[in-house]
Amino acid sequence: MASRPTRTVGESLVQMTEIVLPEDTNPRGAVFGGRVLALIDKCAAVVAIRHARQQVVTAAMDSVVFLTKVRLGDILLLHGRINSAFDSSMELEVEVRSEDPGTGTRKLTTTAFVTMVAVDEMGRPQRVPDLQFVDDEERERAERAAKRRLHRLRARSASLGR
Amino acid sequence: MASRPTRTVGESLVQMTEIVLPEDTNPRGAVFGGRVLALIDKCAAVVAIRHARQQVVTAAMDSVVFLTKVRLGDILLLHGRINSAFDSSMELEVEVRSEDPGTGTRKLTTTAFVTMVAVDEMGRPQRVPDLQFVDDEERERAERAAKRRLHRLRARSASLGR
Amino acid sequence: MASRPTRTVGESLVQMTEIVLPEDTNPRGAVFGGRVLALIDKCAAVVAIRHARQQVVTAAMDSVVFLTKVRLGDILLLHGRINSAFDSSMELEVEVRSEDPGTGTRKLTTTAFVTMVAVDEMGRPQRVPDLQFVDDEERERAERAAKRRLHRLRARSASLGR
Amino acid sequence: MASRPTRTVGESLVQMTEIVLPEDTNPRGAVFGGRVLALIDKCAAVVAIRHARQQVVTAAMDSVVFLTKVRLGDILLLHGRINSAFDSSMELEVEVRSEDPGTGTRKLTTTAFVTMVAVDEMGRPQRVPDLQFVDDEERERAERAAKRRLHRLRARSASLGR
Amino acid sequence: MASRPTRTVGESLVQMTEIVLPEDTNPRGAVFGGRVLALIDKCAAVVAIRHARQQVVTAAMDSVVFLTKVRLGDILLLHGRINSAFDSSMELEVEVRSEDPGTGTRKLTTTAFVTMVAVDEMGRPQRVPDLQFVDDEERERAERAAKRRLHRLRARSASLGR
Amino acid sequence: MASRPTRTVGESLVQMTEIVLPEDTNPRGAVFGGRVLALIDKCAAVVAIRHARQQVVTAAMDSVVFLTKVRLGDILLLHGRINSAFDSSMELEVEVRSEDPGTGTRKLTTTAFVTMVAVDEMGRPQRVPDLQFVDDEERERAERAAKRRLHRLRARSASLGR
Repeated sequence: MASRPTRTVGESLVQMTEIVLPEDTNPRGAVFGGRVLALIDKCAAVVAIRHARQQVVTAAMDSVVFLTKVRLGDILLLHGRINSAFDSSMELEVEVRSEDPGTGTRKLTTTAFVTMVAVDEMGRPQRVPDLQFVDDEERERAERAAKRRLHRLRARSASLGR
Repeated sequence: MASRPTRTVGESLVQMTEIVLPEDTNPRGAVFGGRVLALIDKCAAVVAIRHARQQVVTAAMDSVVFLTKVRLGDILLLHGRINSAFDSSMELEVEVRSEDPGTGTRKLTTTAFVTMVAVDEMGRPQRVPDLQFVDDEERERAERAAKRRLHRLRARSASLGR
Repeated sequence: MASRPTRTVGESLVQMTEIVLPEDTNPRGAVFGGRVLALIDKCAAVVAIRHARQQVVTAAMDSVVFLTKVRLGDILLLHGRINSAFDSSMELEVEVRSEDPGTGTRKLTTTAFVTMVAVDEMGRPQRVPDLQFVDDEERERAERAAKRRLHRLRARSASLGR
Repeated sequence: MASRPTRTVGESLVQMTEIVLPEDTNPRGAVFGGRVLALIDKCAAVVAIRHARQQVVTAAMDSVVFLTKVRLGDILLLHGRINSAFDSSMELEVEVRSEDPGTGTRKLTTTAFVTMVAVDEMGRPQRVPDLQFVDDEERERAERAAKRRLHRLRARSASLGR
Repeated sequence: MASRPTRTVGESLVQMTEIVLPEDTNPRGAVFGGRVLALIDKCAAVVAIRHARQQVVTAAMDSVVFLTKVRLGDILLLHGRINSAFDSSMELEVEVRSEDPGTGTRKLTTTAFVTMVAVDEMGRPQRVPDLQFVDDEERERAERAAKRRLHRLRARSASLGR
Repeated sequence: MASRPTRTVGESLVQMTEIVLPEDTNPRGAVFGGRVLALIDKCAAVVAIRHARQQVVTAAMDSVVFLTKVRLGDILLLHGRINSAFDSSMELEVEVRSEDPGTGTRKLTTTAFVTMVAVDEMGRPQRVPDLQFVDDEERERAERAAKRRLHRLRARSASLGR
């Protein structure tokens, strides 16, 4: 595994900005949760594509809790980063904040952990570069990601066994 | 609580059918995970609106694991049902299957648990009707939903405390 | 023709649920007729794909009369079924109902008859499976469909002759 | 009725041009019939708004027969005109042609008759201006429209009586 | 160059009509400038495809000044024409007018000059037909287009040299 | 003017990331210029909203020259900043880069200057905060923006005089 190419967390960081439009909201002006989930998935996909330099597919999204309401006209800020690179899969973390356009106040809307798998043209899993850590904080994130991965693999086994 | 209106699970069941189009897929013809998540959210919202007879907002989506790949041209089948009605929130369960148009074979893509909250025009939580069970299976589902709710409330507390 | 594969009406039934969003409505909050027509076409296409196990193209849609208004926030329910299978074409019937989210009241919005043709990759018409009837009601539907087909073929001839 | 404002057919003519994109086509590159129907409805709506100077809703679309296939990259040309103005409703006629971008060849895709009703903010039908004819051809079109209207009213009665 | 095919300005004229919908506007009901720019690009592309009988890509859009506001419910009218055909590029001119649906009043929203290049399947520039002028006005337009082209080539050089 | 609130350039910087999908491209896989222009407009609008803390409308976009082709699957990076704040208008600058997902190579696609005006609910121009410079580079940008503004005002006068 020593000969695998490596990439740092910094090389695949992604920042996205969106503005909530009428088409993103229900008749009461509150944004659809599903619209935010789709943005999270897109943000995570770009991080994963940048790390893997390959096409990716979504394998899982961990629980998402919406901490604040997002409304028509709000600005949405998404920050995506890679936490850990496994064989062919990666854990990406996306933080979503909403910004009130009238005051500039930002609130954390949600944090999501997304698992993406690098695939070739036939959809077969492909090895991804190793993650090269530059400090202990990144190393600890990767350790927590590895624990979440075990949890996910067990949940998936349970799910398939139903 | 005895005087709260009640509704059965059967009254709010939702079935949705979609066909995967070029706009739903990445350049390799695999469907975006985010697109499926948005459909799940929409399906859960219709179930919740039907049970609550009010507008709803998404509070949380539990972990979603994609068990099979969905491809361009596939038919997506979503079945949504309510598992439990709490004070102002509801747990909805959505099963997603993909159907190969050439063979008719269906595979389970994922199962998701979504929490929605009924709200008035100002976005304030509103009481929802009680859920009236017609058999033990529905009762057991509600019990499992109550356990998941406790887990979610703890996760949310942890999340806000970060 | 005895050796053609057969399929029942029940095997290709389709149910779709949609919620009317701001992007589906004109500035006064009334849904565009064209949006409903596009949903009808999609519903009919899924029924036809399921019966034919092949790609299909729309050949015709019979007159559509909108019996009730559909408004922002309403739930739309579409039920699609096959009435008759001819050589390479099929008549599909789609009923559209709108449900008021605040009361649960459903009204028939419209009923549409759509003709779809199964095609191969070059767009050439392909034979479709026979329709196997399970009761007299299905048989009578097929007879009425055959009459509508004659009417359509005459209208098409007239149209081409213009 | 003499004091009703009048408008000529020429004042509300509409020409639309579209190009068929990946999002308009099925996985085989053939355009969805529903996409064309939605364009027809939009074209008819603009004609009706121009004649009525009011908001309009779609009341009916007569049978639509697709005479030719439309494919990815084709240019779609829609011409819309008013045939007759009744009390609060109007019959609009939309011709759709597809143009091959490589040869410039145009083919008639379909002709559709759409009935729109002028409405106020509450959705109540509103009187529309009379149609002022400038030649016999326009007068004959209006007469044929009146016959189709009778046919439609009978179909609607039959439909409601089901 | 004498043997190049020629086409007149009239052969590629394009007229488009759109109605401003909720999805085109910001939360205050004013249309997004970007939405109008996308329509201008589409209108210019159809003109260019018609003249070149080939696929085209946008090379440049000159300054666009919005002279009037466009609002929800307005009708947008776009007229596109070719001003000049160079080797593989063309200058297209698009005029945008907005029409108030309640009064029929039209205002000039903007005029834009777009440069498109004809390309083959590999994206390589392709020669386009010569433009055959039918009067002095068309000839003068082509001369002004040639001057704008020189200006653009200089701006592009400056831009690349940054 | 001393009592006007001030804000720095850094406070309204915007970074957007997009991935080019099938719906953004023509049948040959090249992105529509109009799609990029719409993204530029959105990016500039968020910068302007952040500086003004008010709704904004697009007044003008200066010439845009596309320096490189953008293709299906590419990642688009947009960086937006304010160059100068005038009375009620602002000049925003948006740089667009495309990133090849297989190599990570980035190329400058275009740079655009957009003028936005802050407006109240009735669409009337509103004063915006002054721009507080933190270095000479920002001051020089503002001076160049002021020159471009004079050029634009002359072009607009000429345009209205036509």
